[in-house]
Amino acid sequence: MEKSIVTISREFGSGGRTIGRLVAEKLGVPCYDRELIEKVAGQTGMSEGYVEEHGEAAGSGGALEYAMAGRGPDGLSPDEYLWTRQCAVLLELAKSPCVLVGRCADYVLRDRPDCVHAFIWADPAFRAERIVRLYGETAASPEKRLAEKDRARRVHYRYFTGREWGSARNYTVCLNSGEIGVERCADILAGLVRGTGTGDGEK
Amino acid sequence: MEKSIVTISREFGSGGRTIGRLVAEKLGVPCYDRELIEKVAGQTGMSEGYVEEHGEAAGSGGALEYAMAGRGPDGLSPDEYLWTRQCAVLLELAKSPCVLVGRCADYVLRDRPDCVHAFIWADPAFRAERIVRLYGETAASPEKRLAEKDRARRVHYRYFTGREWGSARNYTVCLNSGEIGVERCADILAGLVRGTGTGDGEK
Repeated sequence: MEKSIVTISREFGSGGRTIGRLVAEKLGVPCYDRELIEKVAGQTGMSEGYVEEHGEAAGSGGALEYAMAGRGPDGLSPDEYLWTRQCAVLLELAKSPCVLVGRCADYVLRDRPDCVHAFIWADPAFRAERIVRLYGETAASPEKRLAEKDRARRVHYRYFTGREWGSARNYTVCLNSGEIGVERCADILAGLVRGTGTGDGEK
Repeated sequence: MEKSIVTISREFGSGGRTIGRLVAEKLGVPCYDRELIEKVAGQTGMSEGYVEEHGEAAGSGGALEYAMAGRGPDGLSPDEYLWTRQCAVLLELAKSPCVLVGRCADYVLRDRPDCVHAFIWADPAFRAERIVRLYGETAASPEKRLAEKDRARRVHYRYFTGREWGSARNYTVCLNSGEIGVERCADILAGLVRGTGTGDGEK
């Protein structure tokens, strides 16, 4: 099956966003990251800051916060409403070839055979150095910040998808960007889109 | 860090063994799979059949079987003794560039920066077709056979390593061989060994 969409799930600080941009450049297709957040904000009336955080991470209350959240007449909490709108935006964007960064796109598009689903991760030391250098995070305790972010994404992913975040079997390919390098990760992913449809030499 | 060793963990029927052989051919290094089993058998007095099964899979009794196993004067059950000898053989073989298939080599060599650790998996339908066609498994219920094998490897891996089998964070790279193709998986892994040490373009 020809591939036309790349979804990128990534640990905070692993370089997944940069890899997404590079893959999109190599393939000559749009990369939706910030634009995805803006689009969801536009369609929900929620602030971009709220969509950015709550569209792929649980609040500090974790799973309990989801359970206790106030619900509207439709039975949905704000985060559940956001989830349904975000899914709709992802499905809309995935009508054309593109790269989708974050937002549980691997799950939303799990039954689409034209997708390469990628998970990018790296050791905390690699990510800590990166978030201080590139995102301007304070250097006081970047490891603590990473652990919080990881936990928030894991809880959100489990709540909305019922799956374990970072289990190899959810993705076409998982890459340790700290070991492999950001540029080479992008090469591998672009190659998987370009190369599909070629024969498999196994006898 | 230059890479010289590839460890391949794989789901039964995913083509990991074939991928290992192809990677070794591409790199011009030995691939230890059957030879590894023979070597461990030679050094323990255990039969090759016992080493093949128990060196990476739990018996039908699962974790309980490990807990209840009879122990020798050294406090080790037969499977624990096998584990210590198998680790020693893996460390010995890993003194020179090679490909190591199975045997929890990813865990045994986890602190070696010169390794590419790969996990190969695929959907049950892909693996079921493959084990019937290539291994001559009876076609009656290949899915049941796969589920048993998966369970036995998962229980063994958890008992001896304390880690979850198939968690992306245990490996440099995880690949869905059913989606990507056996030949292309081998290309990616060989590329990761050849390509290391090149500059990373990230700014």
